[in-house]
Amino acid sequence: MTPLHDTALRGFASDNYSGIHPEVIQAIAAANDGHQVAYGEDAYTARLQEVFAGHFGDGVEAFPVFNGTGANVVGLQSMLPRWGAVIAASTAHINVDEGGAPERVAGIKLLTVPTDDGKLTPELIDREAWGWGDEHRAQPLVVSITQSTELGTLYSIDEIRAIADHTHALGMKLHLDGARISNAAASLGAPFRAFTRDVGVDVLSFGGTKNGAMLGEAIVVLDPDASAGLTFLRKLNMQLSSKMRFVSAQLIALLEGDLWLRNASHSNAMAARLRAGVEAGLADGSIRGVEFTQPTQANGVFATLPDGVADRLRESFRFYDWDASKNEVRWMCSFDTTEQDIDAFIAAIARETAA
Amino acid sequence: MTPLHDTALRGFASDNYSGIHPEVIQAIAAANDGHQVAYGEDAYTARLQEVFAGHFGDGVEAFPVFNGTGANVVGLQSMLPRWGAVIAASTAHINVDEGGAPERVAGIKLLTVPTDDGKLTPELIDREAWGWGDEHRAQPLVVSITQSTELGTLYSIDEIRAIADHTHALGMKLHLDGARISNAAASLGAPFRAFTRDVGVDVLSFGGTKNGAMLGEAIVVLDPDASAGLTFLRKLNMQLSSKMRFVSAQLIALLEGDLWLRNASHSNAMAARLRAGVEAGLADGSIRGVEFTQPTQANGVFATLPDGVADRLRESFRFYDWDASKNEVRWMCSFDTTEQDIDAFIAAIARETAA
Amino acid sequence: MTPLHDTALRGFASDNYSGIHPEVIQAIAAANDGHQVAYGEDAYTARLQEVFAGHFGDGVEAFPVFNGTGANVVGLQSMLPRWGAVIAASTAHINVDEGGAPERVAGIKLLTVPTDDGKLTPELIDREAWGWGDEHRAQPLVVSITQSTELGTLYSIDEIRAIADHTHALGMKLHLDGARISNAAASLGAPFRAFTRDVGVDVLSFGGTKNGAMLGEAIVVLDPDASAGLTFLRKLNMQLSSKMRFVSAQLIALLEGDLWLRNASHSNAMAARLRAGVEAGLADGSIRGVEFTQPTQANGVFATLPDGVADRLRESFRFYDWDASKNEVRWMCSFDTTEQDIDAFIAAIARETAA
Amino acid sequence: MTPLHDTALRGFASDNYSGIHPEVIQAIAAANDGHQVAYGEDAYTARLQEVFAGHFGDGVEAFPVFNGTGANVVGLQSMLPRWGAVIAASTAHINVDEGGAPERVAGIKLLTVPTDDGKLTPELIDREAWGWGDEHRAQPLVVSITQSTELGTLYSIDEIRAIADHTHALGMKLHLDGARISNAAASLGAPFRAFTRDVGVDVLSFGGTKNGAMLGEAIVVLDPDASAGLTFLRKLNMQLSSKMRFVSAQLIALLEGDLWLRNASHSNAMAARLRAGVEAGLADGSIRGVEFTQPTQANGVFATLPDGVADRLRESFRFYDWDASKNEVRWMCSFDTTEQDIDAFIAAIARETAA
Repeated sequence: MTPLHDTALRGFASDNYSGIHPEVIQAIAAANDGHQVAYGEDAYTARLQEVFAGHFGDGVEAFPVFNGTGANVVGLQSMLPRWGAVIAASTAHINVDEGGAPERVAGIKLLTVPTDDGKLTPELIDREAWGWGDEHRAQPLVVSITQSTELGTLYSIDEIRAIADHTHALGMKLHLDGARISNAAASLGAPFRAFTRDVGVDVLSFGGTKNGAMLGEAIVVLDPDASAGLTFLRKLNMQLSSKMRFVSAQLIALLEGDLWLRNASHSNAMAARLRAGVEAGLADGSIRGVEFTQPTQANGVFATLPDGVADRLRESFRFYDWDASKNEVRWMCSFDTTEQDIDAFIAAIARETAA
Repeated sequence: MTPLHDTALRGFASDNYSGIHPEVIQAIAAANDGHQVAYGEDAYTARLQEVFAGHFGDGVEAFPVFNGTGANVVGLQSMLPRWGAVIAASTAHINVDEGGAPERVAGIKLLTVPTDDGKLTPELIDREAWGWGDEHRAQPLVVSITQSTELGTLYSIDEIRAIADHTHALGMKLHLDGARISNAAASLGAPFRAFTRDVGVDVLSFGGTKNGAMLGEAIVVLDPDASAGLTFLRKLNMQLSSKMRFVSAQLIALLEGDLWLRNASHSNAMAARLRAGVEAGLADGSIRGVEFTQPTQANGVFATLPDGVADRLRESFRFYDWDASKNEVRWMCSFDTTEQDIDAFIAAIARETAA
Repeated sequence: MTPLHDTALRGFASDNYSGIHPEVIQAIAAANDGHQVAYGEDAYTARLQEVFAGHFGDGVEAFPVFNGTGANVVGLQSMLPRWGAVIAASTAHINVDEGGAPERVAGIKLLTVPTDDGKLTPELIDREAWGWGDEHRAQPLVVSITQSTELGTLYSIDEIRAIADHTHALGMKLHLDGARISNAAASLGAPFRAFTRDVGVDVLSFGGTKNGAMLGEAIVVLDPDASAGLTFLRKLNMQLSSKMRFVSAQLIALLEGDLWLRNASHSNAMAARLRAGVEAGLADGSIRGVEFTQPTQANGVFATLPDGVADRLRESFRFYDWDASKNEVRWMCSFDTTEQDIDAFIAAIARETAA
Repeated sequence: MTPLHDTALRGFASDNYSGIHPEVIQAIAAANDGHQVAYGEDAYTARLQEVFAGHFGDGVEAFPVFNGTGANVVGLQSMLPRWGAVIAASTAHINVDEGGAPERVAGIKLLTVPTDDGKLTPELIDREAWGWGDEHRAQPLVVSITQSTELGTLYSIDEIRAIADHTHALGMKLHLDGARISNAAASLGAPFRAFTRDVGVDVLSFGGTKNGAMLGEAIVVLDPDASAGLTFLRKLNMQLSSKMRFVSAQLIALLEGDLWLRNASHSNAMAARLRAGVEAGLADGSIRGVEFTQPTQANGVFATLPDGVADRLRESFRFYDWDASKNEVRWMCSFDTTEQDIDAFIAAIARETAA
């Protein structure tokens, strides 16, 4: 087959618009040939357990799945009885971007709290953390946070520890949606476990797709007492890959060495370069009217633009509105974003805001 | 990454123990580089629609998903109201091999009928096709058949037409689980549409994984009036791939040319070779006590063995018991099974049954 | 059996703390003796259809169910595909008082909007009425309002018409939770259909229990095009009474004559008397520090009390906190609340706030 | 209200075609007047716990619900994780008469076994009791039996003990659908606990409706370790009555004294009288061609009739076909069936079969 698209074209729409890192394709090919037991009893999935143990410590268990929605919805089911509810930020991916899968497939009620920056706090959790024992209220038994968040922001290690302590003190468990967990680790300059297992996260969704995989995430159980039945839940939720070796091989490719870190650091750096370039333009007057709406702490930049600018920019660079009513846009960087991409984009912003 | 397993080892356990056909890996690589819109609005998924139209005719729509359980459970949901039930053979994959996903995720009651050969007939369908309008009975609104079946057997085109006509005459719709649809087409020597759309199948699960893909199936809607909401159902059932271009590229690799047919014809031929070899051994006395329990019409061979033979054979060749109480085993051939594999296996059968 | 409780004790906790109106018990007894077809094919359920037609006009269909949660969750399912979501006030009973049944049993995502008074408006609906066609968003296809509301307030007929017009213009349907619909009709001085069918409500939950029944509600389909499958949905949602004649007889007792209106008018009048009495006390200084937080438009009174007063009052009269953080309480009146009850309660409020 | 039906007409269609025993209506009336806490914190529900303890021993807990489907589906959920399946006879009410509620509402896969007489045995259970740990198979974790069965047959105490022992030995739990448990106790001449708790039943559905209640069943937890979350499950499954005192009062009326036994013994005796009368007719030649298909061990009689007889009989007496293909019918007796009813019916059978 020959390519059907312009393989030189990149934009800022999403980190899942990018393709597969070459080392990941190479790993898929390396795992090919010959037969391997299906459904996860293969050598690659076994090795993946060791790789995760290297990152998170002994005693963790990883369940590779197809995608982030699957990781979240299956992982949360394993933490909850049928009557459980989940406290989350109203901007959480599970609330706004999964087509109602938590409710429809898992029967989970989401108890959501508005935030400024996509981050929960103990105080915000308390708004929905009540009513245990009252059968008229879906029981809040899990708190779910996203790291890095859907708004490009980052919890500090201490912030997650405070949330975990609070969550556990209330008898609940802590789930972390780590669709961009590598970006978070790179930004914090900390190992994965430092801001997850070591501070009290119980179960997490580990994202590979946005970090350069073709597809592949893993539900990682950090506290075995916090999760039950994942073997069965993964299957009955249609997230069990038959030729699992190829999902596991991708995650090994990312995590066995430092590819995850290279990819995440690069995409973070590109976002920082974009922000710095626009800020410099604002300072020297070459760019006008752009305002940043969130700190840039991972690989996403959120900003408001003057009227009409977004659509003119989009003639050359694809990206999404975040809140069209405020002219707010989201610019996502990826492992394959280049410095030239950034610089060309900054130049375009200058051109379109100059008038 | 280097291989973690013996890449020369193959067995007869399942057609999903095999890896990826090299042309499929090449297609994944060809679709890489540059950005493509996520979630299916990419050039490869668009091309895939054309490829399916080439096979099934204009007006069909294909929804790539991750795996066969997903294809079945999501496709069936699109055919049924909340109160619908599905008539299927008791050996159907949806009944015995999907961990209760149809019931748990989709709320579908399966009305199952025992069969000798995994094949429904109008008469067998009638055992459960009754009770419409009676709210005490889950309403039978879909019939689901598998082609080729879980028992390695094949419906003739006329048999499917008779089932479709009967199903439609009763006001129901016809679903076909085509996890091995390519094996069926190769065995029938007929194009896909001849035994599906042209004879009345409404919606099918098109299998790529067992035919040489890494992972990738498609729900193919043959009659748009028979299905609703697949766009939403695929997402909320966690079967929507973000980097969908790579799922679509795999299916294109199989279906645009004749790779699907080469792979399926080969695995069918290997099963035929295995059966013929054992039959020859039985005839000349070099093999004793093996009895075939099903016709060999696709890529699976079902047989009973003398006591102890299965376990001794398994020291060299992996395969599964089908019904341990009868010493019945299943031998599956794959696109990568070689003539040498078959001949060595026949020799081993002779050796182990000779005593 | 002899009574196990003090049959002279009443309070202000809830209109479902009251018992059964004697005419309702008489109707149950009148429907007794002899055999009647089970599951709704009885003379009483047939008559009930005529009674509802008398109130709502020809062409409506009523499905008696056990309770309000059942009426809401089953009715909403009949209005929605599997991918549908419901826009509601965040204070709606379906959101806060049904233990997650809409999500768990029906798989419905609720898109909730905060309100001051429990009432949606077209503008508030617009906050969640967007994203049709985007599979990442649970599709908003129904708006649900409560009349009278959970906060004791009332939509005017024009307000419901405006909501219905807006809802329909957006391609959605309108559901009304009428657990206290009789109180609403009594307060509006209007027939049921004037503020439901005539202004565009599509399906409603008609409440009998809080109006003097032992138990019994009905899903009333006002627009047959807006609902499908209720016969099946009621059964599979476990809301189909075998001896349905006795549920229907209760609703007939309420609705065939004017018992519904007598009961509702009385409970509304008792709430008005309570409010007027407290206001008079505030005016003449005999009561201090009570502030009303909502208009009193049906049978509930919402107020904030000075510290400690609620608990002291509760030594004699049972009622609930509404928002303990603000000392806000809810006082509900019922069909059996007496003027003496009200006057004694006002005197107690005066006594406890006098200090 | 005046009766809308002929209160002197009775038939043999179902024990839920009958009305309410007068002592039950009296109990409802006795519980009326005054206020009681809603949702089960009332004096009647408290007393009901004592009544059940009197029958089943200390430590049992009863959860009143509306109907039998609710009792079964909610009770089973409390015994199962999300991945659990239930082994039952293919004739079980949960399989054939609940509109798919176990699958649709609870996500439970039923693993059914054909039987001759509606009764499971350890051997029959073994046909589906396998595959634990295999995620491709819905996990069999509960066995459900019905006592007396849907075919009018009865398990002996020893038979239930053998099933319970077998079930527990396999690590599963035992559920009993007791929609007609009073008929069983009356027929066995044994207290309820003798054939339930004392021999190993873990959770049961206790039926009141068919025994003379208006509506009312209870989930009775005999082994607290076998059930979890019923408080929440009952509510979110829409089975929590607000004015629960009236459901509990009905069950108290039946169970505090011997009303349950009088009603059940009478309906059993009427079935026995019917069978004996027909047998006498067959012996003396006044009745021809009737064959009994099941033992008559409770209140139901199953028989095949000569062609055309059923329809002619139904001109005067309502009853159902059981298996129309075999001319098999079901005749159910109720607490209000009279000797005159039976004798008139026997005479009609003689008349219609004489030709």
